[in-house]
Amino acid sequence: MPGPEDAEQIRKLLAEYGRLLDARDPHGWAALFGDDGEWVGGTRYGAIAGPAALARFVAEEFGATPPSVHIFGNMAIDVVGDTATAWSRWMLLEEGPDGLRIVLAGHYDDSLRRTPAGWRFARREVRVDLPQGV
Amino acid sequence: MPGPEDAEQIRKLLAEYGRLLDARDPHGWAALFGDDGEWVGGTRYGAIAGPAALARFVAEEFGATPPSVHIFGNMAIDVVGDTATAWSRWMLLEEGPDGLRIVLAGHYDDSLRRTPAGWRFARREVRVDLPQGV
Amino acid sequence: MPGPEDAEQIRKLLAEYGRLLDARDPHGWAALFGDDGEWVGGTRYGAIAGPAALARFVAEEFGATPPSVHIFGNMAIDVVGDTATAWSRWMLLEEGPDGLRIVLAGHYDDSLRRTPAGWRFARREVRVDLPQGV
Repeated sequence: MPGPEDAEQIRKLLAEYGRLLDARDPHGWAALFGDDGEWVGGTRYGAIAGPAALARFVAEEFGATPPSVHIFGNMAIDVVGDTATAWSRWMLLEEGPDGLRIVLAGHYDDSLRRTPAGWRFARREVRVDLPQGV
Repeated sequence: MPGPEDAEQIRKLLAEYGRLLDARDPHGWAALFGDDGEWVGGTRYGAIAGPAALARFVAEEFGATPPSVHIFGNMAIDVVGDTATAWSRWMLLEEGPDGLRIVLAGHYDDSLRRTPAGWRFARREVRVDLPQGV
Repeated sequence: MPGPEDAEQIRKLLAEYGRLLDARDPHGWAALFGDDGEWVGGTRYGAIAGPAALARFVAEEFGATPPSVHIFGNMAIDVVGDTATAWSRWMLLEEGPDGLRIVLAGHYDDSLRRTPAGWRFARREVRVDLPQGV
């Protein structure tokens, strides 16, 4: 039976996604996805599936980037049995020559699945909303 | 009986407010308010009540504005029976000549009501905290 | 027995921390900490313990600073009986010559305790993540 405790655990999963990304922990980050979990990054990145490919991807993609802070908010979570969907906002902050700047802002469309190890991403689609045309 | 599930649904309502505003969906946005629900925007906007007037207002107000991203956080929700109050933070992002910028930041003071269709805004007061004097 | 209601109350405590700080209410802010509650601010501030010392500290530290908005997100909360831990993101906004700017961004590491008066901070450690080296 789904309950509020499930939404709480999903919120934690969503927060962990940012914490492990900003900590540059590719394997910890990839383990937030189920065995066939997909990360979908639009026309630029396409779909990447499975923890091994995801860890490789994030190690390469974030390996040479400046320190980042991901800020998340506006989480709307719907739990239905052993699956759930979520919509949420994200912003990526970096340090620029004149102080901190918001590099990108967008939203996530998530499908989640209850697994024996807890809630995991089945599919996370990352959308950039600003700047437009990225 | 109020329970944690109510807070979860209210959090979703608060997120939907931003999603539908940024999507420029006046009717979807106005439907988040109860039949006599009020949006209160200080001395500049005053109080606007009821979905029809609210949809008209937001269509005009946001019709010619640049694309936006609303970021929400710091949600404090109190449910008491079939009513609730909430305090939360908001920021409005837009694209500027030098990248993304935070145009305004403030807070919402909300009264909410349980309706047959789910939780709805009875009254949302929007406060701008920065820049000061806006 | 811990339940989802506990996480809800802890989220409210976390939001109140920012609201009372931005409102420059040293005593209300300090009352969010338990009797021996500690605020830990790294090598710059060290550890400050107890509501009286905390109220004094925040009155001095924020007494002459420009108006601020604290934005919080990414809250990951774990409740275990009468104690809890939390990880969350924070950003500090101020008004600059060219509009709003993000002065600092980081995270909080919290230990919380259930008291007769509700959940309180047992220990809040504030970390600055960007800019680096602050």
